[in-house]
Amino acid sequence: MEEKRDPENGRLSVPAELTDSLVAVAHRLADAARRETLALFRSPDLNPVNKLAQGFDPVTEADRASERAMREILARERPEDAILGEEYGASPGTSGLTWILDPIDGTRAFMAGAPSWGVLIAVADAQGPIYGIVDQPHLDERFEGGFDRALLTGRGNTQALASRRGVALAQATLMTTYPEVGDADERARFDRVASRVRLTRYGLDCYAYALLAAGHVDLVIEAGLQSYDVAAPIAVIEAAGGVVTDWTGGPAHHGGRILAAGSPELHAAALELLAGPFAAD
Amino acid sequence: MEEKRDPENGRLSVPAELTDSLVAVAHRLADAARRETLALFRSPDLNPVNKLAQGFDPVTEADRASERAMREILARERPEDAILGEEYGASPGTSGLTWILDPIDGTRAFMAGAPSWGVLIAVADAQGPIYGIVDQPHLDERFEGGFDRALLTGRGNTQALASRRGVALAQATLMTTYPEVGDADERARFDRVASRVRLTRYGLDCYAYALLAAGHVDLVIEAGLQSYDVAAPIAVIEAAGGVVTDWTGGPAHHGGRILAAGSPELHAAALELLAGPFAAD
Repeated sequence: MEEKRDPENGRLSVPAELTDSLVAVAHRLADAARRETLALFRSPDLNPVNKLAQGFDPVTEADRASERAMREILARERPEDAILGEEYGASPGTSGLTWILDPIDGTRAFMAGAPSWGVLIAVADAQGPIYGIVDQPHLDERFEGGFDRALLTGRGNTQALASRRGVALAQATLMTTYPEVGDADERARFDRVASRVRLTRYGLDCYAYALLAAGHVDLVIEAGLQSYDVAAPIAVIEAAGGVVTDWTGGPAHHGGRILAAGSPELHAAALELLAGPFAAD
Repeated sequence: MEEKRDPENGRLSVPAELTDSLVAVAHRLADAARRETLALFRSPDLNPVNKLAQGFDPVTEADRASERAMREILARERPEDAILGEEYGASPGTSGLTWILDPIDGTRAFMAGAPSWGVLIAVADAQGPIYGIVDQPHLDERFEGGFDRALLTGRGNTQALASRRGVALAQATLMTTYPEVGDADERARFDRVASRVRLTRYGLDCYAYALLAAGHVDLVIEAGLQSYDVAAPIAVIEAAGGVVTDWTGGPAHHGGRILAAGSPELHAAALELLAGPFAAD
């Protein structure tokens, strides 16, 4: 890639002909992942395998086949880019761009037949994600953001994504996947926010971030995430007008403790309740 | 209705020409509710109103419009039947049959844009539900059970529903909507089961029961339900081969504490962990 940087933030500036090509490749990845995941969604042949000796962290052939299909496309079409995938790890590149892939975010939901799992695809430079897709194949809903676009495509139409603004904490809808959130300290901080909002809901995996980008949910707060869990949601939410940071207000794209909000004001209100030195750090 | 009773269980026996007509009416109700709910799902005009002075029990114009549309059809086509609806209460009838309607089960999910809400429609005699529909309009998935049928219709096809058999407790997937489940005693009993299963998931409202009937989830355990929350799920799950009782093994159709299982063996295993005198009773 030509080495041009934005004078304001020092980020690589991606020329328009390259952004169009990256978007087209990202959609081809999402299409391929859709085929592989839907072939096994709700199938009795799914056979999840536990990745952990202690506890339960399932992986299925659907996760692996989905990531392999995406890697094959990238090997052919973007051989100079690096890849970081949940199932097959890191592959180096020379372009300064990295594809960050979670072939099934929410494997537990996938196993249970619940359509809150998604395929996460992001393109990142050294400063973080610059474009992302959150795809829900069973619902035919594809959320994408970056390169000046923020769109929900599927079910026969395309609409602009915009996060909800002007919602006070007391009127907000908050989501997280696991009721325990994280360790006891993280849970206690989460509860400070949960006790102040109108509605708290659980269990939606990456789909919660998609709903935030679409303006239906106001806050998503989680802990213990990996970079491949958040890279695509960050790109989509930021493009839709929302804010994603860690619980100190710093960058979120390395994972860890995530605070996503529909507006800067709501982000600030939640951040105040989450902040302070952490027991685990 | 002609007063014929099954000699084995004393239940009203419904002649075939009547069952066909009841099924047709139930689908017309579900179609009408679909129109009303989808018109407001993910709409910025939803404006939920709190039904409670303390706490948050939302109702929306979508709930009310959905129930009104169903009641209009019943007034025209089944004027002799009783109705019990979440939003507009009980209307008497003379036929011995009652339509039990929850126009939106999972209003909180509906508000948050999450497709785990559903429209619940059941036909009951004095002994409980004899036929039911669990409809998820956004997914175009309609689960129905009773009168010797157990079907999932939508997305271009129809398939038989069958709950999953031969799953031991240690391999089971368990669902409930609220992490707190109920009071502390109910939560502790739930946790006894949760600590023994492979996977516990939260937040799916009536859709959890539908996934159980379809063989993707093995156990659903909840407390504090109303009759209109469970009548349709009971009909669908029993038709698909599952078992639904309260936490003492007694009838579940009046609501309260619900245990639904994919097989009699798994039901027995979970019941043993839930049973015993209750703190609140």
